[in-house]
Amino acid sequence: MEAALLQDVLFKLLVIIIAAKAGGWLFERIKQPAVLGELIVGILLGPSLFGLIDPNIAHGTIAFTSFEIITFIGEIGVILLLFQVGLESNIYQLLKAGVASTLVAVVGVVLPVSLGFAFFKYVYHAPTLVSILVGATLAATSVGITMRVLSEINKVSSEEGKIILGAAVIDDILGLIILSVIAGLAAGASANLGFTIGKIVLFTLIFLIGTLVIGIKFTPVIYKYAHKMKIKRTFVVSSFIFAMVASLLAHLIGLATIVGAFAAGLVFERLEEKEHFERRIKPVADIFVPVFFVMAGVYLDLHSANLNMLYVVGVLTVLAIIGKILAGWAAIGAKANKLAIGVGMIPRGEVGLIFAAFGITNAIITNATYSALVVVIMITTLVTPPLLVKLMSGGKKDKHPKKKIDNIM
Amino acid sequence: MEAALLQDVLFKLLVIIIAAKAGGWLFERIKQPAVLGELIVGILLGPSLFGLIDPNIAHGTIAFTSFEIITFIGEIGVILLLFQVGLESNIYQLLKAGVASTLVAVVGVVLPVSLGFAFFKYVYHAPTLVSILVGATLAATSVGITMRVLSEINKVSSEEGKIILGAAVIDDILGLIILSVIAGLAAGASANLGFTIGKIVLFTLIFLIGTLVIGIKFTPVIYKYAHKMKIKRTFVVSSFIFAMVASLLAHLIGLATIVGAFAAGLVFERLEEKEHFERRIKPVADIFVPVFFVMAGVYLDLHSANLNMLYVVGVLTVLAIIGKILAGWAAIGAKANKLAIGVGMIPRGEVGLIFAAFGITNAIITNATYSALVVVIMITTLVTPPLLVKLMSGGKKDKHPKKKIDNIM
Repeated sequence: MEAALLQDVLFKLLVIIIAAKAGGWLFERIKQPAVLGELIVGILLGPSLFGLIDPNIAHGTIAFTSFEIITFIGEIGVILLLFQVGLESNIYQLLKAGVASTLVAVVGVVLPVSLGFAFFKYVYHAPTLVSILVGATLAATSVGITMRVLSEINKVSSEEGKIILGAAVIDDILGLIILSVIAGLAAGASANLGFTIGKIVLFTLIFLIGTLVIGIKFTPVIYKYAHKMKIKRTFVVSSFIFAMVASLLAHLIGLATIVGAFAAGLVFERLEEKEHFERRIKPVADIFVPVFFVMAGVYLDLHSANLNMLYVVGVLTVLAIIGKILAGWAAIGAKANKLAIGVGMIPRGEVGLIFAAFGITNAIITNATYSALVVVIMITTLVTPPLLVKLMSGGKKDKHPKKKIDNIM
Repeated sequence: MEAALLQDVLFKLLVIIIAAKAGGWLFERIKQPAVLGELIVGILLGPSLFGLIDPNIAHGTIAFTSFEIITFIGEIGVILLLFQVGLESNIYQLLKAGVASTLVAVVGVVLPVSLGFAFFKYVYHAPTLVSILVGATLAATSVGITMRVLSEINKVSSEEGKIILGAAVIDDILGLIILSVIAGLAAGASANLGFTIGKIVLFTLIFLIGTLVIGIKFTPVIYKYAHKMKIKRTFVVSSFIFAMVASLLAHLIGLATIVGAFAAGLVFERLEEKEHFERRIKPVADIFVPVFFVMAGVYLDLHSANLNMLYVVGVLTVLAIIGKILAGWAAIGAKANKLAIGVGMIPRGEVGLIFAAFGITNAIITNATYSALVVVIMITTLVTPPLLVKLMSGGKKDKHPKKKIDNIM
């Protein structure tokens, strides 16, 4: 490899990883999710301030190749992140998540997506695909922040906590289906919009269920052979390979790569050795994942901030919050504080950022829209903890407080 | 990231990793080092047969960016590999390696390097830098193969085994110094060749010793803070960051990156938690390292084979073997089978390949010379085991046979 390129990539990658770790640490110190710190590091390193990493660099330069290499490392990070999310989602628990969780999840996706879509399509007169992407970014709850707050006030096993957790997992899957729809629409096709969407939804469901059925039947066999072949440390290598293969397959049949990664995680969750996989893949993900969120920050150029963007941010934030709070009231039959459930669903995080990043890297949304979306995601993440503590502090506490939940963000 | 590029990289990377694992496994089954299998996988995937990965692709294409991304992943692999080698080299054992090991190492580097250099410079009339690189490729012994053979016949703790092990570690350091010299010369400069070489040798020694002194004094402190900052799983992340920082520093002061990685390994070897680092970084290295050796194979184009190349391969192989066998006789004062020591030093492996790859990616040597060097390395690796078994089978066996040594190749 050319020495100048190697030096450029090594230097930038190191700055990104070290700054991300420091930023994440700082934010955890002030009780905020690490991902916020990583995003802000990205904003600072990008064109907004230091200009170390510039997404608008000219093709063919060393800095451009360097940018592509670092972006790919971030992409591996997202694949590993969704693999981890899958590993943490129990499929059977999902099936019995209950009516309350399901209703909260469905309303909590339908409302923000349609509100966001309607605002962009009819007030802002944006193209359909842009409007869908904006709406979709508001869909998925990032349950990590809520769960961490609840764990700090010993409320994880409260009725509210259980409903939120169940709803958030269903949320993730609905979000993945929407992203696949967007990926499909972005790839062109669609003389008939309804037909295309229907086909992609069906494909995603078939893929998720198919991977699960095939995976659960065959993974133990493959795994046994891997053991026999004495491929050392099969935990990390085999989960890495499996997650990448599933992502590539998903991509090849026209779905989003992370649908595959998530499905791979669900499959491995069924293995006896589940916990080994979780523990072994985490340190690897810890290197790659922050790179993605820093790169997500790099695309936010503060120079593009103006009154119009502030207006969009304001409206979208209100819609994002209202949509989820109303979803809380959908928890029919649950003896729980419905406002608290709604508030617990407010934070958007990783998945929302993945959507927005997909939008800008595939040239669906403009830089200004992207920046607005990232700011909205950051605000929803910032407002939740204080509200939740206020709403949930009274009443029964967890009898056996679990150990602090590791925030995968 | 552009969908077409993501798909291209993911696909190629997966093929490389899976094929490398399969090739490595196959070769281990027939008692050959995994690295040979990985090299052959690379030759097959490259222009020689399938043409999936082509180093001569036009700039600016997706396949080109893809090639650069995969190459960088291989570069991380080399950094992690040399970090592991450093982790396995005890600095104090090195200092007391003894006269016999030191003599074997020095003669075993000086002879093959000067023979290879002389052949290329004076018979072949090649430029000085090319001749130095060819000689240098023949320098470093890959002790993994020898140690595995000795472990299989329970002879690791024989006098021969100890001398070979000590000599191989010194070999590595001498090899790194030579590579730094080449890197420095390749970067230009040098009105005065002798002065440049002297400066680089001095720099490398200062760097190695400096990193060690500073590292041993400060790493425990840094590490304590890392612990305090609750950066989770600090083993993998911190060793990864430290190895990369040291590599970048080495590069910036004009040395080879892997000198830095090796020094970082030496520093971490001094930490109490050494074994945790070894165990945790290995699975990560297991993903990256094979990518480097596959990419090393890709550059070997069998179409460039001709009678002249066969002649070069033949002469270099003889010089490579003679140089090391004579080095065995330098083990003055040792009560050991000196022929066996020499034979044990014959295999070249990872380090030789790193040299050759450095040569071709920096356009120092031609494709034909590169191909010849790779074939020579492969032959030295293949001939050693049967010879060694023949020479060492008699006599005292290890009293406490160690568990099989994990070949880092």
